[in-house]
Amino acid sequence: MDDRPIGVFDSGLGGLTAVRELRRILPAEDIIYFGDTARLPYGNRPRETILKYARQDMAFLRGFDLKAVLVACGTVSTTSLDVLQAENDIPVLGVVEPSVRSALALTRSGRVGMVATVASVRSGAYQRLFRALAPAVEVTAAACPLFVPLVENGRVAPGDIVIETVAREYLSPIRDAGVDALVLGCTHYPLLTGVIGAVMGPSVALIDSGAAAALALRDLLAERDALARPRQGQAAYYTSDRAEDFRRLAGLFLREDTAPQVEQVDIDRYGL
Amino acid sequence: MDDRPIGVFDSGLGGLTAVRELRRILPAEDIIYFGDTARLPYGNRPRETILKYARQDMAFLRGFDLKAVLVACGTVSTTSLDVLQAENDIPVLGVVEPSVRSALALTRSGRVGMVATVASVRSGAYQRLFRALAPAVEVTAAACPLFVPLVENGRVAPGDIVIETVAREYLSPIRDAGVDALVLGCTHYPLLTGVIGAVMGPSVALIDSGAAAALALRDLLAERDALARPRQGQAAYYTSDRAEDFRRLAGLFLREDTAPQVEQVDIDRYGL
Repeated sequence: MDDRPIGVFDSGLGGLTAVRELRRILPAEDIIYFGDTARLPYGNRPRETILKYARQDMAFLRGFDLKAVLVACGTVSTTSLDVLQAENDIPVLGVVEPSVRSALALTRSGRVGMVATVASVRSGAYQRLFRALAPAVEVTAAACPLFVPLVENGRVAPGDIVIETVAREYLSPIRDAGVDALVLGCTHYPLLTGVIGAVMGPSVALIDSGAAAALALRDLLAERDALARPRQGQAAYYTSDRAEDFRRLAGLFLREDTAPQVEQVDIDRYGL
Repeated sequence: MDDRPIGVFDSGLGGLTAVRELRRILPAEDIIYFGDTARLPYGNRPRETILKYARQDMAFLRGFDLKAVLVACGTVSTTSLDVLQAENDIPVLGVVEPSVRSALALTRSGRVGMVATVASVRSGAYQRLFRALAPAVEVTAAACPLFVPLVENGRVAPGDIVIETVAREYLSPIRDAGVDALVLGCTHYPLLTGVIGAVMGPSVALIDSGAAAALALRDLLAERDALARPRQGQAAYYTSDRAEDFRRLAGLFLREDTAPQVEQVDIDRYGL
């Protein structure tokens, strides 16, 4: 038993889809979330800047007495995870490995797809891990640069011709490659499950990378006997930009009606 | 006569639409452009951060012996222009006042529209200046948050259902307000002239804020007898991120086929 909270961070609000999943499968856990909205997006920054930001995010979270950290940011997961793991004495999980393992467990055809931001696709992290774990598996990857702005502008509903047109363009080559599992390698994309599912068809399994990471974290905590006692866990939310902007969008990602309490943090002060 | 170059900066590539206009109307002028692509977008950052960035951009440009600076960034123009003007001994022009004056010169109905990023609309800078210069004019403003990502992903052509649907949604309330002049208050938007013109109809004048600023700068230089001697001016381009990414997109904004020479700058080193 370990009642200490789990830390979760992302460059913005997308990581809340992982929080939602954590709260669903581990309702007893306390969660501390930090979303670095003032400095998003991380994806187009130099590698050293991303590492600096990630270290500051960790430094803020480690101000709490945590038992583990989930890095819900795809860019940090693909560029800086090993450094964060080496620098911290608690488990630090990213979103890449859990979703790759989940795709490999689900595919029967040996053909899998991966969609993510330009930075994540360009990093090749997903493709490398697929090759390392299952050299025979064929991976078709596509960057979907318009998905994040479209989600953040609320264009997530099936029937919206804007998101449907864009989704069809991005996903058709992957569908035509005959994949039967598709990794949604960005924490914004689970909000597009309906739209993406309609393009890919019902026989393609969609893997939510935040949810896969949440499941991997549950397994790891269970293995170490570090789950919280049965109780109602609490979540606390922090952002580096205006709390009001964060609150307004948070419900979309948490799929809850009530906007959470959010506190603003001066992230530049941490960890340097 | 003054052959020293004109400096132009923006948070990214959008300011190149102003460069294009400068080169068209002032072909003899040398131009130094800096696009702070590594730190874009400025629009959602705290005011102090925007000012810090703007000062660094100026510090880099002032490393050249300039005769004037055009601030092609809407966010900097609406939040930090007065400070930059006070701190510099050469003329510093923004994009707001020239386009507001142009709209007032063009409108007959006394009803004008303004479209820009969320940050620029929220700042109220355009609306305040319209009120100050022409209290009786009715201004209808709309934020168009998806225009920048759509332009940067090349979705600018009339007939593209994605940009057309989004444009219709953003612009219909402005069209229905009966405006006859529309300020495009973001340097990305001139690339959407075809799409925006189709929604607004042929009787609405579209005002390109970068082009309006270029014209104002020409007038100012002429007045001070500070135009360059007749010759072929040169343009030099600098970016804070990967030069290759800048080069690839630059042609879109400059509407030239040949990608320019671009040099990368470590902007964090300047001006602090």
